[in-house]
Amino acid sequence: MGNVSLAVVRRMSRYYRHLNELLEEGVGRISSQALAGRLGLTASQIRQDLNCFGGFGQQGYGYNVEALYRAIGDILGLNQGLSAVLIGVGNIGRALVNNFDFEGAGITLIGIFDNHPDVVGTSAGAFTVLPAGQLEAFVSEKKPEIAVLALPRESAPEVARRLAGLSVRGFWNFTSADLRLEADSAAVETVNFSESLMTLCYRTKHHGPADDR
Amino acid sequence: MGNVSLAVVRRMSRYYRHLNELLEEGVGRISSQALAGRLGLTASQIRQDLNCFGGFGQQGYGYNVEALYRAIGDILGLNQGLSAVLIGVGNIGRALVNNFDFEGAGITLIGIFDNHPDVVGTSAGAFTVLPAGQLEAFVSEKKPEIAVLALPRESAPEVARRLAGLSVRGFWNFTSADLRLEADSAAVETVNFSESLMTLCYRTKHHGPADDR
Repeated sequence: MGNVSLAVVRRMSRYYRHLNELLEEGVGRISSQALAGRLGLTASQIRQDLNCFGGFGQQGYGYNVEALYRAIGDILGLNQGLSAVLIGVGNIGRALVNNFDFEGAGITLIGIFDNHPDVVGTSAGAFTVLPAGQLEAFVSEKKPEIAVLALPRESAPEVARRLAGLSVRGFWNFTSADLRLEADSAAVETVNFSESLMTLCYRTKHHGPADDR
Repeated sequence: MGNVSLAVVRRMSRYYRHLNELLEEGVGRISSQALAGRLGLTASQIRQDLNCFGGFGQQGYGYNVEALYRAIGDILGLNQGLSAVLIGVGNIGRALVNNFDFEGAGITLIGIFDNHPDVVGTSAGAFTVLPAGQLEAFVSEKKPEIAVLALPRESAPEVARRLAGLSVRGFWNFTSADLRLEADSAAVETVNFSESLMTLCYRTKHHGPADDR
């Protein structure tokens, strides 16, 4: 499983999201062709991806939506009871706290931090912003596995290094810093708006295909 | 050029961003090894990517930072004079208007829209939020090539379809809608937070490598 490519893992996340929508629509069973059509992929691609994890197809019978949804959730590790801290309550941090469904990914947000005196003590969603000076003590005590980095780029590498020395095993990085942590001690998933928009420019120029994955 | 893979284009965006940082640091020339080290890639990977566009290497001499920066900007199409509208001024839309450097990607944001009476007429950054009812007339007149979709998922496909029938050739999609536009009439670049976080969960569980590309 450790050798599954990131492209496969990202598609598994997409399958999971679509299966969730199907469940909400009350769909109990779906053929691999119908699922593929919905995703803009081929049935063979989906089968190939699922086979990386043992396969779940039922020939001529389709997929049980709920069973596949749960199986993919287990594969993705969404049931691990992970908890997260968020650092940096500017516009993007606040948007995440207010709008993003962390629980939908099986993650409990347990604390949010900022170092600006005007921001500390204000509320965002159900949280009160804690001072950045309390971050390490908080992480040492509560042991969250995930840190959401929504702070200025300049501060990101040092904060990440310190948290990786504590309990944090995964960084969700909204800064443009390229985090490289010693000895691969933690995973880093970067959401880089700028690179995404530049890629769109290229594709707009070259009339790229409409599907982006 | 039309056959260059998206992975290469995304790396070109990264090179561009790092070259910009090097320029700001006053670096005029950099060896392929030093550039590779900074990016966590190999010099051979960088050479291979640049060769997709004709190559820019100077054996034993390194890269001229500014020349390479400009060349990659041209390749990515950042000098096309593209303009953009943004639809949906909630938390994420507002974060983009206030904080994101559209100009850094060569794009001029020319109008922002929302359909909520409490939001229309308020200001965000240098803009006053216009009513969604004026969107199509505005796009017909100003002819922006890019639309930033920060509106609710449910509304995204219909808005995208209508704008693709006008001047819009690229959609920067912040909704979880999988946009598929007829006849590949436009490029779609999706920033999907949920899929990104689920991928991080998987990698945290499996102790994935620290580099995410």
